[in-house]
Amino acid sequence: MQKLSRRQVSIVQALYSRHGRKKLNLSICEGLKVCKELEKRNKELISFAVCQEGFDEDLLETELITLSKSEFSKISSSVNSQGVIFIIERPEIATEFESLNDSFSILLDKISDPGNFGTIIRTAKSIGLSQLFYTKGSVDPFSDKVIRSAIGAQFSLQLIELRDVQTAIEMFMNNGRKAVYRTDPHKGVSCFTSQELFENSVVIFGSESSGLNEIEGTMDVTIPMPGKFESVNLAQAATVIMFEYVRRLEIK
Amino acid sequence: MQKLSRRQVSIVQALYSRHGRKKLNLSICEGLKVCKELEKRNKELISFAVCQEGFDEDLLETELITLSKSEFSKISSSVNSQGVIFIIERPEIATEFESLNDSFSILLDKISDPGNFGTIIRTAKSIGLSQLFYTKGSVDPFSDKVIRSAIGAQFSLQLIELRDVQTAIEMFMNNGRKAVYRTDPHKGVSCFTSQELFENSVVIFGSESSGLNEIEGTMDVTIPMPGKFESVNLAQAATVIMFEYVRRLEIK
Repeated sequence: MQKLSRRQVSIVQALYSRHGRKKLNLSICEGLKVCKELEKRNKELISFAVCQEGFDEDLLETELITLSKSEFSKISSSVNSQGVIFIIERPEIATEFESLNDSFSILLDKISDPGNFGTIIRTAKSIGLSQLFYTKGSVDPFSDKVIRSAIGAQFSLQLIELRDVQTAIEMFMNNGRKAVYRTDPHKGVSCFTSQELFENSVVIFGSESSGLNEIEGTMDVTIPMPGKFESVNLAQAATVIMFEYVRRLEIK
Repeated sequence: MQKLSRRQVSIVQALYSRHGRKKLNLSICEGLKVCKELEKRNKELISFAVCQEGFDEDLLETELITLSKSEFSKISSSVNSQGVIFIIERPEIATEFESLNDSFSILLDKISDPGNFGTIIRTAKSIGLSQLFYTKGSVDPFSDKVIRSAIGAQFSLQLIELRDVQTAIEMFMNNGRKAVYRTDPHKGVSCFTSQELFENSVVIFGSESSGLNEIEGTMDVTIPMPGKFESVNLAQAATVIMFEYVRRLEIK
């Protein structure tokens, strides 16, 4: 059984705060699924890896430092931990961009729920987007919770943090985007019938709590909901729009 | 300031366990958003309602019992509580059905994540489904966490718990369903181009951890993912399928 030095323990603990992650340029990833994905795609970013005694080391290729239960619990955030943690280099987050790589872009405004943010990052990656934009005031995409929901997809696409929606729109327009759509739960063109929704465009999603104010120069787009229930969850709305894009690709 | 009797406190605490909810036929709903929804749609089910001192009672119409912070914390599960809890009658969960009300049905097999289950219930309600099917071994749809993610949608549609996938398929067939689709992350007809996907059909989703085994007599359906990343989250997959149904309704 090995032991972490006091310094190592305090490094890992610091990674549960945004400040600590920024200062140390590291992130913490807990759980078998996310560690497996990181090993597959981002091996070069793994700084060190620890597991709890009893963890089946054959499940992963990375060399693991084995800790006793009580040592491991000092650095784990999870009540039902699967007993494995990777410490991984945290990429610098861009605050501007030089080019737009995808045929449409998604901008998230002040997204605050880690589960929603992670799910959207994972979904964006799964549909093949290479960039994802969000505004300042959002939760840190490299927090442990966001990493877990995204199963590490944030290490495989470019995240760009922009100051606010207005600044973002200007930057998009300067880079050749032709149209900006603001998602609205109640009004606007239907995402299923709007012909130009993904034609060199940006689609903006508001935060879970406050939604999006009207934005000059944008068009409203909405997701039809025959059930007349309260609007769907933010990550679901983003998923519907993203897979409508996939559908159109497929029938082309 | 009021106080709950010891008996009342222990009743509420019991509602955090499945057994307690079943025995008492009650559920616990915490948070402003879900309480508002329940007040709007299911007023008649509210047994009693409590809030923490300082909570703005004008936000709700229901009469609230005001508790001190320390009293409230005895019954709250939330660290950042919004200070309001409704105790609400838990509907009997059906284990069979007499008729199928929707033109297609969704069956969830052994769904274990409360957030996923709640999100799927909310999405099902938002697209207008009136019934949702799941198998034994799933998390309780009336647990506090599932209620919170569904913002109470489980009180507004019929939930039917069936023994297992095989039994479910038989019951569906006996009730006139013509086709059963098994969702698969990698193979099958595309959900975007399969013409008959929603024609008097059942679509089955497997659990987060183990997915779905092959099932005789079913067709596989898949969601195309150009990004070649690990499959999307279960609730996202269900959302894509459900809104593809909405899309087809809309363009009809």
